[in-house]
Amino acid sequence: MSMDILQEKIRQKKNPTVAGLDPRLDYIPAHILEEAYAKYGQTLQGAAEAYRLFCRGLIDALKDIVPAVKPQSAYFEVLGSAGIAVLEEICAYAREQGLYVIMDAKRGDIGTTCEAYAAAYLGGIQVGDNTFSPFDCDSVTVNGYLGTDALKPFTALCRERGKSIFLLVKTSNRSSRELQDLIAGDRVVHTIMADLAIRLTDKEQLLGSSGFSAIGAVVGATHPRDLQALREKYPQLFFLVPGYGAQGGKARDVQYAFDQFGHGAIVNSSRGIMCAWQKIEGSDGRDYQEAARNEAIRMRDDICRFVKIL
Amino acid sequence: MSMDILQEKIRQKKNPTVAGLDPRLDYIPAHILEEAYAKYGQTLQGAAEAYRLFCRGLIDALKDIVPAVKPQSAYFEVLGSAGIAVLEEICAYAREQGLYVIMDAKRGDIGTTCEAYAAAYLGGIQVGDNTFSPFDCDSVTVNGYLGTDALKPFTALCRERGKSIFLLVKTSNRSSRELQDLIAGDRVVHTIMADLAIRLTDKEQLLGSSGFSAIGAVVGATHPRDLQALREKYPQLFFLVPGYGAQGGKARDVQYAFDQFGHGAIVNSSRGIMCAWQKIEGSDGRDYQEAARNEAIRMRDDICRFVKIL
Repeated sequence: MSMDILQEKIRQKKNPTVAGLDPRLDYIPAHILEEAYAKYGQTLQGAAEAYRLFCRGLIDALKDIVPAVKPQSAYFEVLGSAGIAVLEEICAYAREQGLYVIMDAKRGDIGTTCEAYAAAYLGGIQVGDNTFSPFDCDSVTVNGYLGTDALKPFTALCRERGKSIFLLVKTSNRSSRELQDLIAGDRVVHTIMADLAIRLTDKEQLLGSSGFSAIGAVVGATHPRDLQALREKYPQLFFLVPGYGAQGGKARDVQYAFDQFGHGAIVNSSRGIMCAWQKIEGSDGRDYQEAARNEAIRMRDDICRFVKIL
Repeated sequence: MSMDILQEKIRQKKNPTVAGLDPRLDYIPAHILEEAYAKYGQTLQGAAEAYRLFCRGLIDALKDIVPAVKPQSAYFEVLGSAGIAVLEEICAYAREQGLYVIMDAKRGDIGTTCEAYAAAYLGGIQVGDNTFSPFDCDSVTVNGYLGTDALKPFTALCRERGKSIFLLVKTSNRSSRELQDLIAGDRVVHTIMADLAIRLTDKEQLLGSSGFSAIGAVVGATHPRDLQALREKYPQLFFLVPGYGAQGGKARDVQYAFDQFGHGAIVNSSRGIMCAWQKIEGSDGRDYQEAARNEAIRMRDDICRFVKIL
């Protein structure tokens, strides 16, 4: 099971964090923008080239520190096909470097549409005699509002191809409470999603040798009490934890995502790492790789003050 | 407001249906596949070319019958950047033909990520001195599991650029009941989503001159009782109704989506129209356009037996 692979990569690097790749033009140093625009002009192609250079640079700087990267699909989609071509390349490059790739796409649909999403990110498509996997990620984030139907094509690929998914359970944003924290019967809505993950894990035999299901859960760092309650209630669910840093989550908050062995969770930072160079006084961004690397190390050490990975 | 535009297009064509563009290789006639593969081989590019020819052909055949098309993003994503390039072209081509374009992407995220999704499908991105809108659809489907935060960047563009969105309320699939039909307090979960649409409509002044909000709701044809209850409870919400035809929804079921003027809803058919040629005995698919057109006319007339559009 793929969650075993992620847990093992975390253990090897002694680092339970994932670097989010959420590129925006205003995060990218001027010298990269200049190089990209010189090649393709101030066009979608030019912007995509800047994303490509920036993300590859980040991967190079971080690959021996972090076990995983999480590209956020939205930022590439806004550049249209030029952005998606770069997203394909970035996923492939990150995997070549031994990184676990979690596509943050929050997809959710039904029937053959959901099959197409699962095939796009975790599987492949047959064209005549050939099979292609445009992204071939290790994992993808999934929205379960539509119920089990929205998960099954993904879990089929977890089983067949050793992939994993992260189901949205309790997200890090303020308005997450509007639906996710409501009480339905004797359960909170977000635990209904977690229960669904457990039910499918049993039914489709998705438990790995690490003790974690191939279906993980997204649980925000900004709700430490929920994090703690969910950790206790769902020992089989691996947590992807957004909200550290820019959104206000602290190391002492995210410690509750982990079990007593320091296993079972990975904490994301996107802007904190990508934009680290912008916090250095007088930086023109030529040091963005060093700045990102230093921040990734700082974040690892910050979290590892509270979490000992066995 | 953009929902006024959709209502007007429906009134002009006296047809409250939308043709879903959900291309798959096994829906496409052999002569199109041959032409595409001859040009680009059995590659993602070749498959994308087949999608392009097929979808353009469908738009040509349907443009004077249906008021709107609904491309399903998943089927293009699975072809990677080659598929997305075709999706961009199809959206532009459909709009040139006067069709209302609803991107079925079911996106939902927070903060700057959600801004990027909204910009991708309804807005644009600035690159240096230039602005680009890779898809520039009229509308997009949105998943509200994350709460208001997942809607605001979209509603901002509804206001500023006359766009619309369709929020997932009660979907057509079987397992939709797992979350959407639960009772939370005195409300069913799916009405919590509808209430959220109403609240935002008031707060952001999204009501159009047709009496409908720029925030519409996805409500499946497969639950006629829910459809009826929701129509009565939410007169301001325009409904996008999937599930007619292949999924089992009948014309007599979908009539409940409309108000007494025959307004306020649009019913989708994807496979029924796209694959109409496969139901013609002995067809080699060269008649796929005629078959699609005939099915679109049949569907229109089927629904208009129950719905009179004033």
